[in-house]
Amino acid sequence: MARKAILLIVDGLGDRAIPGLGGKTPLAYANTPNLDRAATLGVAGLMYPIGPGVVAGSDTAHLAILGMDPYEVYTGRGPFEAAGIGMDVLGGDVAFRVNFSTVDANMVVTDRRAGRITEGTDQLAQALDGMELGDVTAYFKESVAHRGALVLRGPALGPHVTDVDPHETNKPVLTSVGSDPASQRTADALNAFVRRSHVILSDHPVNKAREAAGKPPANIALPRGVGVAPAVAPLDATWHVRSVCFVETALIAGIGRYLGMNVIDVPGATGGLDSDVLATARAVVDSLSCHTFVLCNIKGTDVAGHDSQAEAKVTMIERIDEAVGAVLDGIDDETFLLVTADHSTPCEVGDHSGDPVPVCLYGPNLVADNVTEFSEAGVVGGALGWIRGVDVMPVVTNLMGVRYKFGA
Amino acid sequence: MARKAILLIVDGLGDRAIPGLGGKTPLAYANTPNLDRAATLGVAGLMYPIGPGVVAGSDTAHLAILGMDPYEVYTGRGPFEAAGIGMDVLGGDVAFRVNFSTVDANMVVTDRRAGRITEGTDQLAQALDGMELGDVTAYFKESVAHRGALVLRGPALGPHVTDVDPHETNKPVLTSVGSDPASQRTADALNAFVRRSHVILSDHPVNKAREAAGKPPANIALPRGVGVAPAVAPLDATWHVRSVCFVETALIAGIGRYLGMNVIDVPGATGGLDSDVLATARAVVDSLSCHTFVLCNIKGTDVAGHDSQAEAKVTMIERIDEAVGAVLDGIDDETFLLVTADHSTPCEVGDHSGDPVPVCLYGPNLVADNVTEFSEAGVVGGALGWIRGVDVMPVVTNLMGVRYKFGA
Repeated sequence: MARKAILLIVDGLGDRAIPGLGGKTPLAYANTPNLDRAATLGVAGLMYPIGPGVVAGSDTAHLAILGMDPYEVYTGRGPFEAAGIGMDVLGGDVAFRVNFSTVDANMVVTDRRAGRITEGTDQLAQALDGMELGDVTAYFKESVAHRGALVLRGPALGPHVTDVDPHETNKPVLTSVGSDPASQRTADALNAFVRRSHVILSDHPVNKAREAAGKPPANIALPRGVGVAPAVAPLDATWHVRSVCFVETALIAGIGRYLGMNVIDVPGATGGLDSDVLATARAVVDSLSCHTFVLCNIKGTDVAGHDSQAEAKVTMIERIDEAVGAVLDGIDDETFLLVTADHSTPCEVGDHSGDPVPVCLYGPNLVADNVTEFSEAGVVGGALGWIRGVDVMPVVTNLMGVRYKFGA
Repeated sequence: MARKAILLIVDGLGDRAIPGLGGKTPLAYANTPNLDRAATLGVAGLMYPIGPGVVAGSDTAHLAILGMDPYEVYTGRGPFEAAGIGMDVLGGDVAFRVNFSTVDANMVVTDRRAGRITEGTDQLAQALDGMELGDVTAYFKESVAHRGALVLRGPALGPHVTDVDPHETNKPVLTSVGSDPASQRTADALNAFVRRSHVILSDHPVNKAREAAGKPPANIALPRGVGVAPAVAPLDATWHVRSVCFVETALIAGIGRYLGMNVIDVPGATGGLDSDVLATARAVVDSLSCHTFVLCNIKGTDVAGHDSQAEAKVTMIERIDEAVGAVLDGIDDETFLLVTADHSTPCEVGDHSGDPVPVCLYGPNLVADNVTEFSEAGVVGGALGWIRGVDVMPVVTNLMGVRYKFGA
């Protein structure tokens, strides 16, 4: 058999009963004929991305869905952000995600996002990249908006350091300390980097221009989310697939890169509510000509959930349903499509929650269950039962016929 | 969000099909409009308190339901009994539950419960409390009826000792041995305590009076259920709640105390079939004015199960249903109520069993499933699926909105 599979992760899809939607969730409320068709013809159930009640991040949930135990491989967001924007994070490196921020003369944070700066951060990053801090080198790169990533490379660095970012305004920048000698070396380099970043950025022409325009200067780089490169095996070798991924955020792209997946950017895939999801659907279908396994993440639903915009979430779900229709029409009858979420982002919460998410699996030779509606309540009692994120790869690769027998 | 939650643990609630009840369980047979309302409006499922088929004790099940792995933290019942009656059990102490028993002149046990003695045990306990055994001190306190608890405190005591209690009548008191040098020190102190208890109690006026009245004397203290203080973190700090517990047995009160919970006695809450459960319901509702998390255990159902009294169990369940009604009427629309059992105590067994128990969860913004009856069979196929005891705290605190995100 040469069967193929697509995992469509609708970011933050799950939700709770919303009074303004007649007590329905956005997914139950939305008109989703294609998702319902997949649920009707295939099998469905509920999935705990990590475990019952565990509030998953997008990163930890994707690690689980791709077959890894996040409690083992996840040390922090930094290395995933760095890898996601194309930086190398090698064994022994310590990596951070970074905000360009604004501090006053007393190193008190006045704006954690430097007025949500959007331009010139590439020049600011260049001014910091390659900084030598004793025997440690700092690699720095900008990401979207006020964000960036920092990789510290040098002998004997440990990851157990406290934050320099106070995580709120009107608080001073903190001094990092390490909990062991190797981590104290990291803390020393980190503290030196932060002080030097303030000196370098304060005089930078980009900031002089911002101040002249009355905007807060991006006059310091504040790292957080410390972590080390995860010890993971290439996805293709582990699961006997030829994989590709289409994702809309650097964080998930970083996970794909660590796993050795082919990471492809689709023009028009913005990660927002305006994302061209039909372009992504076409790219997914096209990629099957030379890949057997596709990971696709669409982010807009999560954005709407974080903003507590139930109607925007409904609209985004209906647009994604169209894209699912294009995928169902485009794939052959030897291809599976699994649709689920990495976590719930209930509009009433405005953030991730630990609720179970719906999952449905469509493809050849499945024994259909009684589920006819792809929604949080509609999938209860489906043939998949209650699975966990780490079950997804075994379930899918089993159906693809690429698994080894355990035993004889 | 400042949401609150109540866990109502109906002790030993679960049961099996009983011919005398038309093949129904006591819960299915009972008239329970309030529990059914909670199940209808909320989500339901089945719970394995520890694992499928594992016969849970009340103590191990409550540890699991409160978020701990009982295989890690449970060493024996002694420390929970001792803490439950207000004794200190410190790190390094070894604790036992104890029966006042009757032995003959050859130290053969003739009555393990000393004629179910109910009076004078406080005086007997005082005569034993503070006994010096070399460098080990024995602390002793009476509990209800023929029961008490013993705490041994001294340098280098180990918990791995064999029983002195033969656990049946017409057998001699045993000599305890330890499996390592520290535990042998405990065994030596334990053996000395038992011998001394016989000498002291035989001449005690309480026993002289009992013998004069033709009752068996409580002429020996027989410890069992050895254990050490569990290594647990305060519940409030772990789960970000402000907790209180209303329980009817010393054993569960001891767990509450170890977890730093506010443990409150309700007048009329007897732990028996006559318990004033409406008083408990009122106390639970009132406690929400200054707490965010309530644990409530009602014991009568377990008593009826141990006594194989199916009809008494039905009556107790119907009384508890009234109390549930009072709770549902008393709480606001930001409060969750989870109802379940710590284990089944089937009338046909007359003891605990490893069957799954029903669970239902009522509260704001839940997407209702199709369950309309709170019973062992009625909850099958509910949205909670099949959970385990250790899932309860994550599931509940997720809904309360007090959980940290794992990842980003």
